[in-house]
Amino acid sequence: MREAFHDELESVYSDLSAICGQVKVSVERATQALLTGDATLAEQVITADADIDHRRERVEDQAFALLSLQAPVAGDLRMVVAALRMVSELERMGDLSVHIAKIARLRVPEVAVPVDQRSTVVRMAQIAEGMVDKVVRIIADRDTEGPEDLRLQEEEMDKLRRSLFTAMLGDDWPHGVEAAVDLALLGRYYERIADHALSVANRIVFVVTGQAAAVS
Amino acid sequence: MREAFHDELESVYSDLSAICGQVKVSVERATQALLTGDATLAEQVITADADIDHRRERVEDQAFALLSLQAPVAGDLRMVVAALRMVSELERMGDLSVHIAKIARLRVPEVAVPVDQRSTVVRMAQIAEGMVDKVVRIIADRDTEGPEDLRLQEEEMDKLRRSLFTAMLGDDWPHGVEAAVDLALLGRYYERIADHALSVANRIVFVVTGQAAAVS
Repeated sequence: MREAFHDELESVYSDLSAICGQVKVSVERATQALLTGDATLAEQVITADADIDHRRERVEDQAFALLSLQAPVAGDLRMVVAALRMVSELERMGDLSVHIAKIARLRVPEVAVPVDQRSTVVRMAQIAEGMVDKVVRIIADRDTEGPEDLRLQEEEMDKLRRSLFTAMLGDDWPHGVEAAVDLALLGRYYERIADHALSVANRIVFVVTGQAAAVS
Repeated sequence: MREAFHDELESVYSDLSAICGQVKVSVERATQALLTGDATLAEQVITADADIDHRRERVEDQAFALLSLQAPVAGDLRMVVAALRMVSELERMGDLSVHIAKIARLRVPEVAVPVDQRSTVVRMAQIAEGMVDKVVRIIADRDTEGPEDLRLQEEEMDKLRRSLFTAMLGDDWPHGVEAAVDLALLGRYYERIADHALSVANRIVFVVTGQAAAVS
């Protein structure tokens, strides 16, 4: 019984890690679509989201079955409950990459990001993708050292978002309202992906140690 | 044992409903601060969020204890798991009202919303507040008729947000980039509050019927 439980729990966590891998692909593709005005790639991100949603439901069903049939306690219970929460956050990260893809699609054949803000958006996207990539492994390895690293990256994300706002709200902003509105929302979406990534990493710390992570 | 379980579960749901009531106050105050440029009121929303977070933790602890000590199954298990998810969504709704309050605070002594967009923002805020208010009762009464009503309101929210974008991106937008960026983010925040409200109402349907709500 206990061994079967742990096998199934392991399978839930390996699904979580795989879903996180899919989210990473979505964030990468959405960013690529955004920077190149590639409508086909944007469509791929939007279509692929149904698969992430479907896998979320499967993880939820599995976790629910584990709770119902095995009535785990203490650390095991913590792991199942955390899985239910992490899968919601991963799904949201997928939704956010869809929002990015939709802004890309809306501006085709133009590109939503002005040339002089491109490097800032590229860096924000790199941070978000890098964080999601780390979380793939943090979930798989139950790595408790992850959050500290991710917190630094989240801080850089905040700085980049602020510099985007400084540029947009300056008197010499040459790109008009549409570009500014797009960038304000894009900044928000990348920041939220980063927030969720850090939150998932923190949940892994809680799962492993029973203590809240020192960083949030 | 069963009776004690159901008393505790009832106490969890009454806490959820009370937290939702606090969220409603936050959304109302944040909107008021936004429309009047009232920094004190904005501060109150920001400060009060710690209390929502604290109550969320208490609900989480209670739900975790119920799972751990009582090992509920079937409908009871569904109710405890749903409570864990709803409390996360309620907390996010509180965070979103803080974001609205922060935009209000940032523009004091000015008002972030231009006069000619005021009625649209007021209507968005009314919808969001009305939805949150309904959810207070939907949770308390385990009302399964709620979502259909809320879905119509969410549709109106989408329309309002689109009309905001049409105004901002028109050639004759007179208010410049800052007002547009503020409105884009405000529209997003109110829309997300409405999304979460509908999602919580849908979870109540699932809790009561064991079936996903027909509307989402």
